[in-house]
Amino acid sequence: MSELARFGVSLENRLLEKYDRLIRKKGYATRSEALRDLIRSELVKKEWEENQEVAGAVTFVYDHHHRGLAGRLTDIQHDWQSLIISTQHIHLDHHNCLEIVAVKGRAHEVEKLAHALRSVKGVRHGTLSMTSTGKAID
Amino acid sequence: MSELARFGVSLENRLLEKYDRLIRKKGYATRSEALRDLIRSELVKKEWEENQEVAGAVTFVYDHHHRGLAGRLTDIQHDWQSLIISTQHIHLDHHNCLEIVAVKGRAHEVEKLAHALRSVKGVRHGTLSMTSTGKAID
Amino acid sequence: MSELARFGVSLENRLLEKYDRLIRKKGYATRSEALRDLIRSELVKKEWEENQEVAGAVTFVYDHHHRGLAGRLTDIQHDWQSLIISTQHIHLDHHNCLEIVAVKGRAHEVEKLAHALRSVKGVRHGTLSMTSTGKAID
Amino acid sequence: MSELARFGVSLENRLLEKYDRLIRKKGYATRSEALRDLIRSELVKKEWEENQEVAGAVTFVYDHHHRGLAGRLTDIQHDWQSLIISTQHIHLDHHNCLEIVAVKGRAHEVEKLAHALRSVKGVRHGTLSMTSTGKAID
Repeated sequence: MSELARFGVSLENRLLEKYDRLIRKKGYATRSEALRDLIRSELVKKEWEENQEVAGAVTFVYDHHHRGLAGRLTDIQHDWQSLIISTQHIHLDHHNCLEIVAVKGRAHEVEKLAHALRSVKGVRHGTLSMTSTGKAID
Repeated sequence: MSELARFGVSLENRLLEKYDRLIRKKGYATRSEALRDLIRSELVKKEWEENQEVAGAVTFVYDHHHRGLAGRLTDIQHDWQSLIISTQHIHLDHHNCLEIVAVKGRAHEVEKLAHALRSVKGVRHGTLSMTSTGKAID
Repeated sequence: MSELARFGVSLENRLLEKYDRLIRKKGYATRSEALRDLIRSELVKKEWEENQEVAGAVTFVYDHHHRGLAGRLTDIQHDWQSLIISTQHIHLDHHNCLEIVAVKGRAHEVEKLAHALRSVKGVRHGTLSMTSTGKAID
Repeated sequence: MSELARFGVSLENRLLEKYDRLIRKKGYATRSEALRDLIRSELVKKEWEENQEVAGAVTFVYDHHHRGLAGRLTDIQHDWQSLIISTQHIHLDHHNCLEIVAVKGRAHEVEKLAHALRSVKGVRHGTLSMTSTGKAID
């Protein structure tokens, strides 16, 4: 966390009143906190668009009874091991596994890995959580 | 446009530097302008979520050779005429028409109208543009 | 509309039952219609990603009392006139105007135009509706 | 995995050719596989909208030097422990931690938990990965 700067913002009175109501409802204590969150979201979007180093999670669900599937998913993770930090595996029920792969690397590479895992036959659903290494938003 | 208010925002120095680079790249002259746009987008999202009075455009593409289709689309628009301000019709080529319906009304009603138009057999693609009557963001 | 092809799809029984319930609820008469809509949405997404020729609508709201604004917006539209088919202008109330610009052209050019209009000082909110010229989805 | 059903789909010839090109490019071996993925994504969307039992991951980044923050985040997780399966914690660098919380429960509850974690002062960015317990898409 770096030193705090303070700057002034001009905004139409009525707009500011409406925004104050919105952020109060969202549970923010101050305008600075609410704006800081908006600003960080914009910066994280930019990190992904500009193919910078990012962090995230690839989450997918599969049936481990599907023959050869678990092995195939492990193989893919080894092929991309430079991007993968660790993997969390959850037994959702007798059939379904939830696997969450923590990743760090260039945005486009991370997107390719997510696509590779999601499109394996037998994987029922997959998503990519796009967040930041924190460096670009500190 | 109401009177301008001025308030202070505290933000980590490094975060502010990064944000300044981002908004310069996006073509904003001042932080106030960039933040005003972010704030308005948040307020418009809220208008739609809270089913307030909104404005927008329903845009769809169809083949006017599809028998009975143009009539069906006109009928639907008449059924919802309290929401519809005006319609722009464009002949994209020999087959395809682009129709853009300007709408104003309760958000959920507008969404229903968009769904009704989009799901008519023969309509190839449709989208809903969600914007504001301007009152909630002035 | 070209000739109809017919092909077979294999799907898990339980998955098919769930999907049938979903599409009935959405008002589709047949699976073919529901899948055709999904397929077209995928193709339209691809058109935009691959910078093909697309159609759409740029929708924005502004206060026409804002000095010089209407002229500025007209100037921008003239600069991009090769992309613009026609413009619909709606007087929402004493202050607010809704302007909907029907556009056709390369996807990235259309996105630039949308950004140019949206970021003019005094424009309160703007969105881009991404649809198709119909050719890629017929 | 249940028994396979087989059903016929009617689609315009030209549309089918375009879709075949698209799915080949995405790496699918058959139309059935591509359509199965589309269908599952629709069903997962519905699970979340209808507040069914879902699975997912809440991912967030924070600076562990921020005083009291780690404790606060742990407290929140304990308050919601009925939703939380396990947590993966990654030391991204000297300052930044990536925490990925695997969750299962009613969709709206999971969304509230994600909001609660994301909005703690000092959390730099957070996202919610929305996937399925697998039951609704098998």
